[in-house]
Amino acid sequence: MSTNKSFKLAVVGGDGIGPEVTAEALKVLDAVSANYGVTFERTEYDLGAKRWHETGETLPDAELEEIRGHDAILLGAVGDPTVPSGVLERGLLLKLRFALDHYVNLRPSKVYPSVGSPLANPGEVDFVVVREGTEGPYTGNGGALRVGTPAEIATEVSVNTAYGVERVVRDAFARAQARPRKKLTLVHKNNVLVYAGHLWKRTVDAVATEFPDITVDYLHVDAATIFLVTDPARFDVIVTDNLFGDIITDLAAAISGGIGLAASGNINPDKTAPSMFEPVHGSAPDIAGQQKADPTAAILSTALLCDHLGLTEAAAAIEAAVTADIEERTGAARTTSEIGDAIAKRAAG
Amino acid sequence: MSTNKSFKLAVVGGDGIGPEVTAEALKVLDAVSANYGVTFERTEYDLGAKRWHETGETLPDAELEEIRGHDAILLGAVGDPTVPSGVLERGLLLKLRFALDHYVNLRPSKVYPSVGSPLANPGEVDFVVVREGTEGPYTGNGGALRVGTPAEIATEVSVNTAYGVERVVRDAFARAQARPRKKLTLVHKNNVLVYAGHLWKRTVDAVATEFPDITVDYLHVDAATIFLVTDPARFDVIVTDNLFGDIITDLAAAISGGIGLAASGNINPDKTAPSMFEPVHGSAPDIAGQQKADPTAAILSTALLCDHLGLTEAAAAIEAAVTADIEERTGAARTTSEIGDAIAKRAAG
Ligand SMILES: CC(C)[C@H](C(=O)O)[C@@H](O)C(=O)O
Ligand SMILES: CC(C)[C@H](C(=O)O)[C@@H](O)C(=O)O
Repeated sequence: MSTNKSFKLAVVGGDGIGPEVTAEALKVLDAVSANYGVTFERTEYDLGAKRWHETGETLPDAELEEIRGHDAILLGAVGDPTVPSGVLERGLLLKLRFALDHYVNLRPSKVYPSVGSPLANPGEVDFVVVREGTEGPYTGNGGALRVGTPAEIATEVSVNTAYGVERVVRDAFARAQARPRKKLTLVHKNNVLVYAGHLWKRTVDAVATEFPDITVDYLHVDAATIFLVTDPARFDVIVTDNLFGDIITDLAAAISGGIGLAASGNINPDKTAPSMFEPVHGSAPDIAGQQKADPTAAILSTALLCDHLGLTEAAAAIEAAVTADIEERTGAARTTSEIGDAIAKRAAG
Repeated sequence: MSTNKSFKLAVVGGDGIGPEVTAEALKVLDAVSANYGVTFERTEYDLGAKRWHETGETLPDAELEEIRGHDAILLGAVGDPTVPSGVLERGLLLKLRFALDHYVNLRPSKVYPSVGSPLANPGEVDFVVVREGTEGPYTGNGGALRVGTPAEIATEVSVNTAYGVERVVRDAFARAQARPRKKLTLVHKNNVLVYAGHLWKRTVDAVATEFPDITVDYLHVDAATIFLVTDPARFDVIVTDNLFGDIITDLAAAISGGIGLAASGNINPDKTAPSMFEPVHGSAPDIAGQQKADPTAAILSTALLCDHLGLTEAAAAIEAAVTADIEERTGAARTTSEIGDAIAKRAAG
């Protein structure tokens, strides 16, 4: 298929290992897109710790508006120990997710037989977490009084709306519908967080009536962590809120080959703004700049990116290249760019 | 040591498998206490799903005041599918924890070599989670507007005070001090929940100056779940908030021999009210009344109970009996009361 189509891609390498793994992801994207007559016109945005130290800026509105003009965003990682915790996360990463209405934070988990899992018997793991991306305890709602005194009080408010919950639940049902097992698990904590929990539960029950062929179940988040280590193969599609999704997707990554393989898409399904693709891992400042990071998660994120843009063959080619590379891993150390080169070569075909 | 001391024990068997496992825990407690000249004067409280169905009551204030007059509480499990989610949890279990100021929710995790872990290589796991028990998102703060309409909004408020955080952090440092490795890990999410997270972080940093021999580190809750499956042996004492503690202690239980072995104490260290001891597991209504439940977690909870009451030898005897029983487990099925009998016999010595 040759489409001669060009996409505008905003690239935010970010902090720590972010720029390194992003470089490899772009290498693979270029290698593949050539085969499908697709080009990616890239604009790099210099955002993150260095920029903040130099200018005090995290993501100026003008740049956010520029980024909005793109077809998609590729992001490396955000966060650095030299910057107060929260400044870059809230001011850059979450600002993008919220401003661009990335309400579906998509995080697939798969156990590759050749990659060790810390679990003795992981079974056939192949599920996807649909994490809500624009509400919950991530809204920045809350505050603190009398900071630094013995009378300090600090609150964090989880905000959940029918509007916000329903749209992500619908998206999760549609994804379950498209998968062979057709199973959806809501993860929440509705025996304690009764206001938000009941809204989530009622919404899932209501939308379920429109998807009679989907098997629906519910797990408290604490119980979900147990099943993620004792029987992860039971999961197909999980839908959950922003914070629970954050927690269980790191756990999901850990049990299925490690955080070096976990890709994610911050998706705006209505396409009113560009979606953003990033590895689940963080900036890992301890190994930054040393060519030690595994770029596989960033590379797999470009497969999600291609999929989102309708380039399903390109997405499949990237995934196949990664799977082939993973299957031949011997445990011998390779540099970040050696891994990128190997996957790019396979992906180019 | 013979003290001829008598303790007043309030017993809440509760729902599902709660009464069954509690019966075995009491059996063991009686067997051991006889050896140390200690007696437990028991009052049973009929609370839980049945009571709620019959009377609409969860925990009337008069009964709460009666319970307050005891030296300790032994609880089985709370929660039933026939009762709307949250009613018993909030109205009974959390009411007890909050009213009796159980600000230290203590949850030890240990891998017994003979009990399988779902992890291929768990290593030497022996840590304790100090979960805050009276604040965080568990306060019932929050609400909902326009319920059941497309304009519904539901909030949950996490409440954190310097008063509440400092006292639990101090308790955790003292526990770390008493352990050989002298290590404390704060688990939070201070890159997103900046108000609460910074209060927790500042408090740990401040109290740390009084405990110069304790090694302190910090992990985001998502990263903590990764380490709990890839390197759980790294942990010694973990201190965390109510919700994160709920989540990671179920995971901790799962990786260290299963939820059938996980004990907990809801502790009021100031002894202004009785502390409460309970297994971490839930009411498991699917296997209730069938003598299928493992009472070990409930039994180990009585060891924590004895420890709290200063009966350290009795506590050690219960732990030793459990360890010996676990080491000889062959995988052959035993009923709940067979396990209780076996451990009681060993504990009696
Ligand atoms: C860096 C942080 C703000 C972020 C999150 O909590 O969402 C990360 O953990 C993730 O999962 O993408
Ligand atoms: C039953 C529930 C309210 C409780 C909690 O969330 O604290 C339980 O999960 C626990 O960990 O003791």
